[in-house]
Amino acid sequence: MSNDIQNTEPLKRLLLDSFLLDSREAFHIARTTISSQNGLVYHCHNYAELFWIKQGAGIHVINGAEVPLQPGSLFMIRPSDMHTFKLGKPGMNMVITNIAFRKENLDFFRKRYFPGSDSFFWSNKKIPFTCQLAPGQLNEVSALADRLIGQPRDFLHLDFIMLHIFRLITSLRSEYLHIPHWLAYALENYNSPERFKRGTEEFVALAGRSPDHINRTLKKFLKQTLTETVNKARLRFASQQLIMTNSPIKTICYDCGFDNVPYFHRVFKKHYGITPLEYQKRNHKIF
Amino acid sequence: MSNDIQNTEPLKRLLLDSFLLDSREAFHIARTTISSQNGLVYHCHNYAELFWIKQGAGIHVINGAEVPLQPGSLFMIRPSDMHTFKLGKPGMNMVITNIAFRKENLDFFRKRYFPGSDSFFWSNKKIPFTCQLAPGQLNEVSALADRLIGQPRDFLHLDFIMLHIFRLITSLRSEYLHIPHWLAYALENYNSPERFKRGTEEFVALAGRSPDHINRTLKKFLKQTLTETVNKARLRFASQQLIMTNSPIKTICYDCGFDNVPYFHRVFKKHYGITPLEYQKRNHKIF
Repeated sequence: MSNDIQNTEPLKRLLLDSFLLDSREAFHIARTTISSQNGLVYHCHNYAELFWIKQGAGIHVINGAEVPLQPGSLFMIRPSDMHTFKLGKPGMNMVITNIAFRKENLDFFRKRYFPGSDSFFWSNKKIPFTCQLAPGQLNEVSALADRLIGQPRDFLHLDFIMLHIFRLITSLRSEYLHIPHWLAYALENYNSPERFKRGTEEFVALAGRSPDHINRTLKKFLKQTLTETVNKARLRFASQQLIMTNSPIKTICYDCGFDNVPYFHRVFKKHYGITPLEYQKRNHKIF
Repeated sequence: MSNDIQNTEPLKRLLLDSFLLDSREAFHIARTTISSQNGLVYHCHNYAELFWIKQGAGIHVINGAEVPLQPGSLFMIRPSDMHTFKLGKPGMNMVITNIAFRKENLDFFRKRYFPGSDSFFWSNKKIPFTCQLAPGQLNEVSALADRLIGQPRDFLHLDFIMLHIFRLITSLRSEYLHIPHWLAYALENYNSPERFKRGTEEFVALAGRSPDHINRTLKKFLKQTLTETVNKARLRFASQQLIMTNSPIKTICYDCGFDNVPYFHRVFKKHYGITPLEYQKRNHKIF
């Protein structure tokens, strides 16, 4: 296999209309297993494209550079990007899901959701936006794509999956983006009364690492201990419950895994500057 | 409790800004347990509102009419609608989740997703749009609202939940809207190889009714037998797999629960007018 596939083949420009069955379709979605180099050509597009790797491994040849692909790799391809794929080793497959849509939608997405953004599809960098989905996120996105099969390919369904993906990516707080996946996973999922009740042990179980290793990694990336991390998650949940529900403060206290109400008050006030009751009163009910 | 609550209390106009913490917030979301008439007043809004009942029962007093509410009841309230709630029986609670957002978003939603629609928020009828969520849908919407807690209240998250709800409602094919919930549930969920492999028995299990009762109900509402219903679901799945994946036709045939390929070909061609291979060829790959 040649290493400079991009130089030996003519540049092809793919047109979205050739994938759409009908001019009313707003997007194309497909899942493809790449098992040989046949049919892979270096190309650009007249449309925007998002793809992720569901299984297997390979190489993304993009604007002359080579970026390794593994399960969970996600790319947002701008119309001007030139790219193709290479398989890693002979006999190795790669399962790619991609979504293609008219570039006009990019202006719409930026205006409504990311005003002034120079990230995602609006990055000016040589290599387009890429990120690594955690295993749970990869499953979520793949399940979503499965659900889209057979649904109308209209703007409702395009935006449905795109917002889901944008949300998934932006909900990784920026500080999470460079931390190990096992830790991001634990931080994302340590979020329910059942988990809080099992205390730090539950966080350790979610992380799947030793408490020492977790503490060292938390200090390195988030400058906080395991206990502080767990308390922060509990307080965040408490503040959300105070805003979103009308559960009594006592219930919220126990749901967050705090053993007694005065201690909960003290920790809450230390963190938010006001008591839980004051925090709750600031919220208006809709009725 | 007076039956003409709407005549004895002054009409109050609620303002969205009084619920938003900050002018950058695009919406308000809250879950409230109504356990007494205290604080319930007949009101209109300067905003659009969507609500659904998670638990309990009561009455929706809306534009002078009374509509019973039960778990899964969902309403789309226009700014001009006047409404309030009444509890069914003394001691009975009602858990309501509602989402409020600026009415300008309604123009946006209509233009992009439902051009020319006179349904949903754009209905001109006296009673605003309402529908009954099936139990699975109610759980899905409620879980989604839970996930929104603590997320930024921006357009990304407003549209995220609204598109989810619009999609859920429109994915009920119009013919499903008046059929019994247990049947809608079975039709929606009979959609995977695991289920197809267990044949009509699996459909019966999903429906939770006797085969005779299912057959009678299917004939009444959809003019088809249980076997026809099951085959239709299998063929729909097959057509989606042919478009969305590059699985061999043989695999798709077995995944759909058909025992042999020639029979699958025959049934497919009878339904779609072309063979599975022709159907697959009409689909273009993205690469």
